[in-house]
Amino acid sequence: MQEESVKTAEEIFKEFREHSVTEFFKKNSQMLGYAGKVRSLTTVVHEYVTNSLDACEEAGILPEISVEIKQVGEEKFRITVADNGPGVPKSHIGKVLGSVLKGTKFHRNMQQRGQQGLGGSGCTLYAQITTGKPVHAESNTGKEAYACDVSIDIKENKPIVTNLVALPVEGHTGLKVTGEFGEMKYERSEHGALEYIRRTAIANPHAHLVLIEPDGNTVDFPRSTNTMPKRPKPIKPHPLGLNVADLVDYAKASTARKVSSFLLESFSRVTYDKISELKNIAGIDFDKRPQDLTWEEAEKLISAFKKVKWLAPEMDALSTIGASQIETAMKNILNPEFVSVVERKPKVFRGGIPFVVEAGIAYGGNAGTKTSQGVSGNIMRFANKVPLLFDSGSCAITEAVNEIDWKRYGIKDFDQEPISVFVNVSSVYVPYSGVGKQAIAQEEEIIDEIKLAVMEAARKLQVHLSNKRNRNLQESRYKTIMRYVDQLSSDLADITKMSKEEIRKSLVKLIESKYSQLFKDTLASSEKEGQQAEEASNGEVS
Amino acid sequence: MQEESVKTAEEIFKEFREHSVTEFFKKNSQMLGYAGKVRSLTTVVHEYVTNSLDACEEAGILPEISVEIKQVGEEKFRITVADNGPGVPKSHIGKVLGSVLKGTKFHRNMQQRGQQGLGGSGCTLYAQITTGKPVHAESNTGKEAYACDVSIDIKENKPIVTNLVALPVEGHTGLKVTGEFGEMKYERSEHGALEYIRRTAIANPHAHLVLIEPDGNTVDFPRSTNTMPKRPKPIKPHPLGLNVADLVDYAKASTARKVSSFLLESFSRVTYDKISELKNIAGIDFDKRPQDLTWEEAEKLISAFKKVKWLAPEMDALSTIGASQIETAMKNILNPEFVSVVERKPKVFRGGIPFVVEAGIAYGGNAGTKTSQGVSGNIMRFANKVPLLFDSGSCAITEAVNEIDWKRYGIKDFDQEPISVFVNVSSVYVPYSGVGKQAIAQEEEIIDEIKLAVMEAARKLQVHLSNKRNRNLQESRYKTIMRYVDQLSSDLADITKMSKEEIRKSLVKLIESKYSQLFKDTLASSEKEGQQAEEASNGEVS
Repeated sequence: MQEESVKTAEEIFKEFREHSVTEFFKKNSQMLGYAGKVRSLTTVVHEYVTNSLDACEEAGILPEISVEIKQVGEEKFRITVADNGPGVPKSHIGKVLGSVLKGTKFHRNMQQRGQQGLGGSGCTLYAQITTGKPVHAESNTGKEAYACDVSIDIKENKPIVTNLVALPVEGHTGLKVTGEFGEMKYERSEHGALEYIRRTAIANPHAHLVLIEPDGNTVDFPRSTNTMPKRPKPIKPHPLGLNVADLVDYAKASTARKVSSFLLESFSRVTYDKISELKNIAGIDFDKRPQDLTWEEAEKLISAFKKVKWLAPEMDALSTIGASQIETAMKNILNPEFVSVVERKPKVFRGGIPFVVEAGIAYGGNAGTKTSQGVSGNIMRFANKVPLLFDSGSCAITEAVNEIDWKRYGIKDFDQEPISVFVNVSSVYVPYSGVGKQAIAQEEEIIDEIKLAVMEAARKLQVHLSNKRNRNLQESRYKTIMRYVDQLSSDLADITKMSKEEIRKSLVKLIESKYSQLFKDTLASSEKEGQQAEEASNGEVS
Repeated sequence: MQEESVKTAEEIFKEFREHSVTEFFKKNSQMLGYAGKVRSLTTVVHEYVTNSLDACEEAGILPEISVEIKQVGEEKFRITVADNGPGVPKSHIGKVLGSVLKGTKFHRNMQQRGQQGLGGSGCTLYAQITTGKPVHAESNTGKEAYACDVSIDIKENKPIVTNLVALPVEGHTGLKVTGEFGEMKYERSEHGALEYIRRTAIANPHAHLVLIEPDGNTVDFPRSTNTMPKRPKPIKPHPLGLNVADLVDYAKASTARKVSSFLLESFSRVTYDKISELKNIAGIDFDKRPQDLTWEEAEKLISAFKKVKWLAPEMDALSTIGASQIETAMKNILNPEFVSVVERKPKVFRGGIPFVVEAGIAYGGNAGTKTSQGVSGNIMRFANKVPLLFDSGSCAITEAVNEIDWKRYGIKDFDQEPISVFVNVSSVYVPYSGVGKQAIAQEEEIIDEIKLAVMEAARKLQVHLSNKRNRNLQESRYKTIMRYVDQLSSDLADITKMSKEEIRKSLVKLIESKYSQLFKDTLASSEKEGQQAEEASNGEVS
């Protein structure tokens, strides 16, 4: 069995090495979204813009963000993103832009666009491996202002900050980052930076966004509202959203002296009443130190959690775009003949993680995607108001829209109709399927909820389409009949010796009264259908 | 503009935290493949079996791998994978199973199934967060044998090894790992463990695999060959596969004293002749210490590399399944009416990373997937002989197969025909689109090469299908004519007074000779078309 080249375990493991997470992502930068030239450029814009929006939101500032893209060589681009956010303190700029998996967002139970502390540092890494240059940052927090260069010590996953100079603390606060990146291509396609910014503007009507394209062309997306969106806020985890490992971790980190006070302090919806209920069910000592909670005891607690009736998680932690904003945006951009938007009530997945789905459908006008064969339906995907342009094949939103039986809603073939479906999923924790955060993992509860939202919007579309067909039918009948009126009037005038004009008028009156009734019926039935649709959807919601 | 809840940069960054890569994957275990109950179970089997196959291959041992799956609670399973590989030294078992991004495979330029040092530790992490239990390992390297439990210190990304006991060093070498995992479901579906093992057997005919299902049923996949596959071997990187950052890294780590000797030693296909050519083009000092090479100099070198004519990368580093093995496997499993398998010559992507594509098509019999409407075409995807069961939507293989105009090959609608397409992509570095390694990133050069391979196989299918249609036509004509022979014979006998039997016999002889000629023509043209197809395909290859 053994060959010449056989190696023993000892020989094999001589080659054992450790490597840093940065080395890992250097080798696998496609996992961060750096796959393909167009996508790589969009990824950089996406990461910086996302960070700017989050920073402005947290500081309560209406965002002004400008993105400038300049070609500086073959497949090389200089990208600058400047915002009016709170800036980054000097002490943190290295970690923010120069080390992977470090940040303010990862550990917070709060809806934000960024979650992982990977975005900004990922850009620095990509600049470094494609042009060898650090990124340049200028920041003003209102208390200190400075400029510096940031790169990454890849083996150690540590930031290297150089050329630090002080700047005058005047003018507005904000952060401006400039990087030079290779292996990129600028394209005005569905996957390009322009489309990314356009969709970001749709989902963030309170933001003012400006894109300066490589040819110098400036595209301005002014804000359409001066109202800040409802601020998302950190919430305590809901007991039903915990797994055993989480509970043990929280218990270990707790400073409470008893399990009962630990539960009261750490989790949402836990009251003294609930504690007494749990005591009866769980069969563990609620007076012991939470730090001493064993896995088995935590398991018992988790299974007790599932037997108690809880108030739903706090939903006001979630910030949506808003149905009217979505409707306005879709009308402005797609100029469709019909729009219907649905904002669902928040739901939970995995037991206790709140999320909420907004869905819109536009039909006709510029809805859908132009193709060589004509037009095809398309899906605009968003997570926490961030457009998802890639990996649509593995996304819960795509899955949900594809699972819908569109024929039931008057759409014979989704791929051959002028229809755009808009879906935004907001959550404290969006389960992305990959590190590049371009697709939502196919969690059943999320898919189901997206389907319900889109179907609710689709029912209104169906009513519209069936009315339209009805009207078309009635109109063509009406026109056909009207064509005979003249001839009939003269014939009747001949027979009855009445005035032809008199006869014509009364015939027209007759026909029009008949058809106005029909049109009214159509309208009435339309309203009725609309109501039924809504009732049906409410039925499904409950 | 500023609201009550406004936060300054200083306040925001008070919340700045660092977290370990293990914490990251604990929170985002779906990125490692732990998304959905069925998939989670398959992921564990996939990780352990992959590691076992790699270990056996490296030690030159024909693999014997058994996988036992036992249900031990609601959605809880105990999974044991035992192999006859080289085992793991005691000094390394913790790192292999208990820390993320550490391993023997990451830094080697060599075709292996595992690449990232994430698999085994990912399983331990998932056991820990779903059942709170360490995994149990038993290893025998032939020099030492022991059993122990392994878990992970998640905050520090460090292994915790407990309950270490010595075992007698007798019997065969090998590693046996047992873990208990929650949130799982066993299913005999296309995404289940049985299908995973079945496809692993197809792609690894030298392996003997046994699966014991939760109901006790044993499924045995005996090996179909006793020959070890060609051993993949580590190769030096090809100059055309390097980017500037890689070159700088290699230069920094080099012990050579001059750039010229560094290039000669470190990279494949670099000769003294090539060095003189490069010297003329690059315009840098080849006598300087490689450790002092600047980014700009490295850029000049890389662009000089692109101007020199190089021998193609060493291809014998790649290990394929082999066309005849694939054909045998497809015949055994699908019992199709037609099979055609193509092994392409190795190609390179990103300039210098060698890869090779094997493709097979089976038609008829049990090929395709049974659906409620009948049958649909399906794709069996493999990378380095590892079956890819998930994320098909974002995979280069799916993309390539979908881009093919199947009508040209006699397949009216891929989704409604009994057709199975088999594709295996082998490379020193497979660019997976995600950490879970279930899809190949959509690199253009890889997609194109897969398309060529599948189209080459499809041309043979087309010949088969058109001959089949021809034959059917001829046969039905032949049968129609034969139906008249009896009547004609008696009529002619009446007229000519010859024996009816005589006439019948000569008529039959006449018709058969005519049709045997036709049948022969069909066969001949089939062979001719086959040759043409092959010539055409060779044309495309060059």
